[in-house]
Amino acid sequence: MKHSKLTACISLALLISGSALADDQALRDKAARAGLAPLPESAPDPIDNPVTLEKVQLGKALFFEPRLSVSGLISCNTCHNVGMGGDDNMSTSVGHGWQQGPRNAPTVYNSVFNRAQFWDGRAADLKEQAKGPIQAGVEMANKPDHVVATLKSMPEYATWFSAAFPDEADPINFENVVKAIEAFEVKLLTPNAPFDHFMQGVDTAITAEQKEGLALFVDRGCTACHSGVNVGGQNYFPFGLIKRPGADILPPEDKGRFEVTHSASDEYVFRAAPLRNVAVTAPYFHSGQVWDLKQAVGVMGTAQLGLALSDADAGKIAEFLKSLTGVAPQIQYPQLPVETVSTPRPQL
Amino acid sequence: MKHSKLTACISLALLISGSALADDQALRDKAARAGLAPLPESAPDPIDNPVTLEKVQLGKALFFEPRLSVSGLISCNTCHNVGMGGDDNMSTSVGHGWQQGPRNAPTVYNSVFNRAQFWDGRAADLKEQAKGPIQAGVEMANKPDHVVATLKSMPEYATWFSAAFPDEADPINFENVVKAIEAFEVKLLTPNAPFDHFMQGVDTAITAEQKEGLALFVDRGCTACHSGVNVGGQNYFPFGLIKRPGADILPPEDKGRFEVTHSASDEYVFRAAPLRNVAVTAPYFHSGQVWDLKQAVGVMGTAQLGLALSDADAGKIAEFLKSLTGVAPQIQYPQLPVETVSTPRPQL
Repeated sequence: MKHSKLTACISLALLISGSALADDQALRDKAARAGLAPLPESAPDPIDNPVTLEKVQLGKALFFEPRLSVSGLISCNTCHNVGMGGDDNMSTSVGHGWQQGPRNAPTVYNSVFNRAQFWDGRAADLKEQAKGPIQAGVEMANKPDHVVATLKSMPEYATWFSAAFPDEADPINFENVVKAIEAFEVKLLTPNAPFDHFMQGVDTAITAEQKEGLALFVDRGCTACHSGVNVGGQNYFPFGLIKRPGADILPPEDKGRFEVTHSASDEYVFRAAPLRNVAVTAPYFHSGQVWDLKQAVGVMGTAQLGLALSDADAGKIAEFLKSLTGVAPQIQYPQLPVETVSTPRPQL
Repeated sequence: MKHSKLTACISLALLISGSALADDQALRDKAARAGLAPLPESAPDPIDNPVTLEKVQLGKALFFEPRLSVSGLISCNTCHNVGMGGDDNMSTSVGHGWQQGPRNAPTVYNSVFNRAQFWDGRAADLKEQAKGPIQAGVEMANKPDHVVATLKSMPEYATWFSAAFPDEADPINFENVVKAIEAFEVKLLTPNAPFDHFMQGVDTAITAEQKEGLALFVDRGCTACHSGVNVGGQNYFPFGLIKRPGADILPPEDKGRFEVTHSASDEYVFRAAPLRNVAVTAPYFHSGQVWDLKQAVGVMGTAQLGLALSDADAGKIAEFLKSLTGVAPQIQYPQLPVETVSTPRPQL
């Protein structure tokens, strides 16, 4: 190669590179203006539940504790599997007696960043949320008194609850069970997704296609509902704002937040799904009837935005969504307390 | 205290201590002669399945993989919970469709040291064992072809199988699934129980009552069946050798090893239970109908030895058995591969 040609090539490369850099920064700024932000490495303590190491350790044991269910078979981790994106890959979860629940299990990861818990936001926080599945007949089918009796029968739990709630004379109670679970769940974050690194200035953290998808995600209006560090989970919207999806995806009998508020304007209203780790938490929507991420993007375009997204655009947005898959924390499997003769027997 | 009195006290203390030391060594020798031995820190590789780090890592993922079951809900760890002594604290396990299986789930811990697997020894080794529950209709209810199709649908499994079986062109097959599980299970040992430390020369590792219990365990003949590093698991014996227990404990329809060999002499014959971690793996016997360890010891005395053990002696033996609870390995929860659109859906 002649010297002049080489110089020209280098100049051109620098020009393209400089242009790409400028484009990346513009995209980053656009995303930030639309409310997207990197996921923090840690979450603040809940205001009414200071997080201590002892509480987190207890909460971890309880999260993996099948004896929280009346059968002794189902733990939080059964449906919120920390090794599978924090959910169960089921359309709707299977619980006590092999019954299927009414809605898809949301991921436990980063759930502390949601405005409220459950698809209809009926629990204000994670400790309130934890009370639900433990008592639901189709999930763990247990009762608070029975949970407490079970835990009190095992001396190691007495020690662990005393360490987690040192100022309390009788710390094994249902409120403390869910406080400990909340303390553990506050630690279940998945930072350092490629998207986070991109937002933090690493241009190469996401692919060119993902950048195109991110631009579309903002330009087409997805960020109207899916923004914040959790890319959703912040507000309530009617599913089918523009065009109601079919009954397979939006079963008419589940009226969403209406069942909480009994307000007609809340019919078929749901909390916008947080999209962190969405690529590893199929199937989608509260009904769990769509398994393909690109298809789910298409449904959202039609139902919420009134847009018939092209297959190519839906694909690019789906590629961008894959960049929201973060790094799960390392969790050592807990050794659970040993039962005693007074521990209630499994009730199948 | 006067000087002479102090001297006398010290002399007496030394005498007792010296005598106790001699007694401890005698007890240790007696236990060793009866075939009891400390649990090794590691197990040799299976002769036909060299254990590599990659195979163990793959096996761990498969052990925690609910998608090995046709429902996508039940993993090996469901019934062999590594946080609960390696079993499920159920009389008999609950599997596909909430069906109850016929026998109590044995612990996975230290199972590599058993002569054969299952209560009736019908599997020669751990990889043969692993084929059972995956296919049993009342457990994971799956089929080898479906397992392979499921695993092949996830690119990370392709990578992991290639790393674990580097010389094979098409490594995802049912034989390799169970080989990897076996490789992981070979690592599931619980050494460093108090009894092990006692046998290794630490006189204070077990209590005076446990020493009495150990002496009784040998003297009354328990070691005739429960010996070796696993304190059992080595041979087959009729349950009810001297006196058959009631139908609640020995249900007449389950004829044990007879169902494997069809030899009349194998009616109601079972593999002697390995007693490592027995204090944390209630309920007891293949029927799982006895929840109290002391009661189980009493049943064994009557049924196998023709001895009506006193309540005090049964209690001492139960105390000794508690010294067999070892230290479980630290297991980091695996991050399982993400599904693709071609991954078979859960079949409930």
